[in-house]
Amino acid sequence: MTYCLGMLLEAGLVMMADTRTNAGVDNFSSFRKLHELGDGRDRQIFAATAGSLSVSQTVLGLLEEDALEAEGEPGRTVGGAATMFRVAQLVGAAVQRANDSVGAALDKVHLDSDVELLVGGRIGNAPLKLFLVYSAGNFIKCTSEVPFLQIGETKYGRPILDRALGYDTPLDEAVKIGLLSFDSTMKSNLGVARPIDLVLVPRGRGEPVLSHRIGEDDPYFEEITQRWARLLREATQTIPNPPWLRRGPAPD
Amino acid sequence: MTYCLGMLLEAGLVMMADTRTNAGVDNFSSFRKLHELGDGRDRQIFAATAGSLSVSQTVLGLLEEDALEAEGEPGRTVGGAATMFRVAQLVGAAVQRANDSVGAALDKVHLDSDVELLVGGRIGNAPLKLFLVYSAGNFIKCTSEVPFLQIGETKYGRPILDRALGYDTPLDEAVKIGLLSFDSTMKSNLGVARPIDLVLVPRGRGEPVLSHRIGEDDPYFEEITQRWARLLREATQTIPNPPWLRRGPAPD
Repeated sequence: MTYCLGMLLEAGLVMMADTRTNAGVDNFSSFRKLHELGDGRDRQIFAATAGSLSVSQTVLGLLEEDALEAEGEPGRTVGGAATMFRVAQLVGAAVQRANDSVGAALDKVHLDSDVELLVGGRIGNAPLKLFLVYSAGNFIKCTSEVPFLQIGETKYGRPILDRALGYDTPLDEAVKIGLLSFDSTMKSNLGVARPIDLVLVPRGRGEPVLSHRIGEDDPYFEEITQRWARLLREATQTIPNPPWLRRGPAPD
Repeated sequence: MTYCLGMLLEAGLVMMADTRTNAGVDNFSSFRKLHELGDGRDRQIFAATAGSLSVSQTVLGLLEEDALEAEGEPGRTVGGAATMFRVAQLVGAAVQRANDSVGAALDKVHLDSDVELLVGGRIGNAPLKLFLVYSAGNFIKCTSEVPFLQIGETKYGRPILDRALGYDTPLDEAVKIGLLSFDSTMKSNLGVARPIDLVLVPRGRGEPVLSHRIGEDDPYFEEITQRWARLLREATQTIPNPPWLRRGPAPD
């Protein structure tokens, strides 16, 4: 399993992904799930992947192949597409092509071939966008009402996002909340683990894109993990016990 | 969906279950999922159910039917079984019988027939026990290393349990932590909702068993929901922002 999180905020875009892959509990490994698509000149486009690693790598491979073969037809490639909506369509179509080849072969031997992607970024001066591409190749976009999208092992880390993250959350704060969401997930699920990759694209065009990897011994992550555990325990203590639970002493 | 939580602690047993059932998002209803099994004289035995409501009701119905028909063979009934292990076996066998009848019919029309149960309590002077009976009728017991078992929509509410609950947590505190676990689940998932039923069986035989229902407007639950949201936001603020995120002012 994997956990990937995308946050599209007033201040910019944040995308985060862990690196754990596993085929059963006895075959763990570490693969990068956060990738840069496009050529980086007039566009910053990133994709995070969850699900079958062979299928998601095929999706990325097909997109790269298209870039090599689509000379004279730039609209057919992520590097040449005019809009982020078009990029999401291209990624969705690549998912469908991967399903038809690798996916069908996996289905035959009853292996899960589902794959999902977060695709985010911007082209030229157009606004930042974030999409979730489902395993059938269809997709939805992120809007300001719920300013985040998740794929993979999404449930453990969702409560903190539902409570603490808003469209107006500053980027630094959002990264911190995102890391707490990863921390909750990793605490409860072996299928998600560091290193965590993240990319941060500020809304202002002139601000640099920041890429960062949080390694297995990252001191900041260690600190927030320990602080968060302590703060949660303290917060629990602060809340009064149920008033209907006053019982007398035990007679035996 | 449903969320049920059982906690087997040094101080006693706590079982909690919500009451939400739904067949699709347009067919919500409220059904009790926490039931007393057995006759209450020499035993206190409770079951919480998650999954297909028709199958779980059939399981309970079969156990009641056995109680009526097993005259002279008390070992065949929850009310007559000599141990909690035997009770778990009987419940598991009832799940298998329900699978063979109702479950098979549901499978034919491609409806999910899975059901899981938490079965907890004690018989005579034997120690308190807690079991999770899976949809195939097999089961595991709760041990002090991880002193809780969950069924249904388990993931949203797990991080707080992993962090705050230990075998030595007092019962009052455990109920509070359990309610926070339900709060996290209900905040992020429409398939779990109040009323919440709970039963508390103290370790000491002389202390009374407490049953309680937390209604839709329960003032204590409202209070902890609001306090917890505020405490989580405050805790988030307390943690420093990532040091590698210091960026200069935006040039545009």
